[in-house]
Amino acid sequence: MTCDKHTGAGAGKEVEFFMAKKKLGKQTVALETPPTILAEAGIVGTKEGQGPLARWFDEILTDDMYGETSWEKAESKLQKSAIQKALDKAKLTTGDIDYIFAGDLLNQCAGSHYALKDINIPFWGLYGACSTMAESIAISALTLDGGYADYTVAVTSSHFCSAEKQYRYPLEYGGQRPPTAQWTVTGSGSCVLASCGGGPYVTHVTTGKIVDMGIKDANNMGAAMAPAAVDTIAAHFADTGRKPSDYDLIVSGDLASIGTQITKELLAAQGYDLSANYNDCGNMIFYTEAQDVHAGGSGCGCSGVVFCSYILERLRRGELNRVLFVGTGALMNPLSLLQNESIPCIAHAITVQRSLA
Amino acid sequence: MTCDKHTGAGAGKEVEFFMAKKKLGKQTVALETPPTILAEAGIVGTKEGQGPLARWFDEILTDDMYGETSWEKAESKLQKSAIQKALDKAKLTTGDIDYIFAGDLLNQCAGSHYALKDINIPFWGLYGACSTMAESIAISALTLDGGYADYTVAVTSSHFCSAEKQYRYPLEYGGQRPPTAQWTVTGSGSCVLASCGGGPYVTHVTTGKIVDMGIKDANNMGAAMAPAAVDTIAAHFADTGRKPSDYDLIVSGDLASIGTQITKELLAAQGYDLSANYNDCGNMIFYTEAQDVHAGGSGCGCSGVVFCSYILERLRRGELNRVLFVGTGALMNPLSLLQNESIPCIAHAITVQRSLA
Repeated sequence: MTCDKHTGAGAGKEVEFFMAKKKLGKQTVALETPPTILAEAGIVGTKEGQGPLARWFDEILTDDMYGETSWEKAESKLQKSAIQKALDKAKLTTGDIDYIFAGDLLNQCAGSHYALKDINIPFWGLYGACSTMAESIAISALTLDGGYADYTVAVTSSHFCSAEKQYRYPLEYGGQRPPTAQWTVTGSGSCVLASCGGGPYVTHVTTGKIVDMGIKDANNMGAAMAPAAVDTIAAHFADTGRKPSDYDLIVSGDLASIGTQITKELLAAQGYDLSANYNDCGNMIFYTEAQDVHAGGSGCGCSGVVFCSYILERLRRGELNRVLFVGTGALMNPLSLLQNESIPCIAHAITVQRSLA
Repeated sequence: MTCDKHTGAGAGKEVEFFMAKKKLGKQTVALETPPTILAEAGIVGTKEGQGPLARWFDEILTDDMYGETSWEKAESKLQKSAIQKALDKAKLTTGDIDYIFAGDLLNQCAGSHYALKDINIPFWGLYGACSTMAESIAISALTLDGGYADYTVAVTSSHFCSAEKQYRYPLEYGGQRPPTAQWTVTGSGSCVLASCGGGPYVTHVTTGKIVDMGIKDANNMGAAMAPAAVDTIAAHFADTGRKPSDYDLIVSGDLASIGTQITKELLAAQGYDLSANYNDCGNMIFYTEAQDVHAGGSGCGCSGVVFCSYILERLRRGELNRVLFVGTGALMNPLSLLQNESIPCIAHAITVQRSLA
């Protein structure tokens, strides 16, 4: 097939609707046959198990080493267990899964690679920092809706100890954490998606752009990520013609207390009032004050377990019908910060709806 | 839409063809409207510019710092330039691009994030180590064929100095490189894909599984990656019913001399004779002996520039019609190796064809 229209500058524009028929505006796609989230699982560490969402998780570790000999191996085991639990709930085996989409915070996404090295499922590696849960579900949804798969798995993880060691200070050093710091969640969230099913459905995907407002403090990721969340949420509303009140819940992950406040203020300035139905996974997973986590939770595992174990279950119970899940990631590299670079950030949003009726 | 068939164990199987209509076998999809690679660009460092492919590259650096103050910043600039050159050739601007798919070898894919932080295009971050060029083109192709985009960009990069520093030894240390070691290419390859055009076309995508045969030597990545390449190439032939002779060229990237030999032997044992039309980007980019690169080239930038600057141009000239490009990645993490883990590897394959006639 040839198409000469496509050989000139911007030629795509006149045929945009014809060509990219599923696009709404610049950053959002509406899925033609919205994939179903068949089943999900969330496993967390001991500290997360003492938080307000404890009863929603599938498993709470009694030892954050999870019986392994390193924090990194414990993180990989978290992913493996989260995937197996989700597969069991979906009554599927690894042989039924067409693709797995995974990523984590460890250098070279080691948490995912070692978790999945024996699972024998076609694998696409992703890196979106703390936006990875949204990214993996989003690309899963495109793959299913596009007719490339029947079943996919989306998974991510983080571990407080492996993350602190890699991004900040050796734990043994006992570095002081400033009030703006977020606490990396130890946990893994996983879900199994199907091209067809009874819901909850992924109906829209709004892909974020990298946004960098110049923040250079790795201990203030909320402030760094907030503008990316604002950019994506505003794009979602502009592309879909929806407003905040069209959602039962708009939930970001993970901006924590500081990023949440900034996001609300910046969106209010654009005419979007999030005061009634907005929350952030980083504010939900811990008793922020009592558990001394400073600004709140963070890490791929934070939005991973809050979305999979808590939000999806509330959708299944009918307590929520339409949710906008906005995964936010600080794409920082410790070396780049030492080279005086700032923190590029991104946010990807997906709309999840209990029923299409 | 609901579908009860999809709620039981393995229920997907009976409806697999109906559901995932574009699947051929377990790991391959055939694209319904094969996307076109509109334009491409490859930029390389000084050493690569002294190799046998020198005349094919769009730009050869005279200084591998590329006017920047760090190797990491130079790598980001390589990506930026490669993208701009490809866009210029396609007569498109960043505003025409729906999505950019990028990744690299630096921790947290910093090369890509800093390259793209001002480009203002919806971004999906990938991590596939040296398989990233194939991964980014593959997911681009699914996104275009699926109707989610008109134009996408796929890009990756590597830089010898930033990679050695991160994965092995500080350059200043002057560590000895064993004969099995590969030389990370300094370069960036980028291509612009369109949902419709005059070719070359991406017709098939074969997604790899993580394969780990227990190699623990970061200086013998070819041996570590070869089994992953074999697994994916054999899956491609099994899924499509094709044989090696159906291709003008089967090219992997980057196994170099040792991995290439192992791949040929293992595939021969499975009845696939690659003696006539198989090569590897890591063997093509340098005068391996004369330039003292030991086993050969490696790094995302190696298969990136060889595929974009050399192989695609030969397709355009009609010197090749059908190519199987197999990106191979060693998903290693230096810390995991210190923890006595082995090297998980992956290979993703795409079929690129000059004409569909």
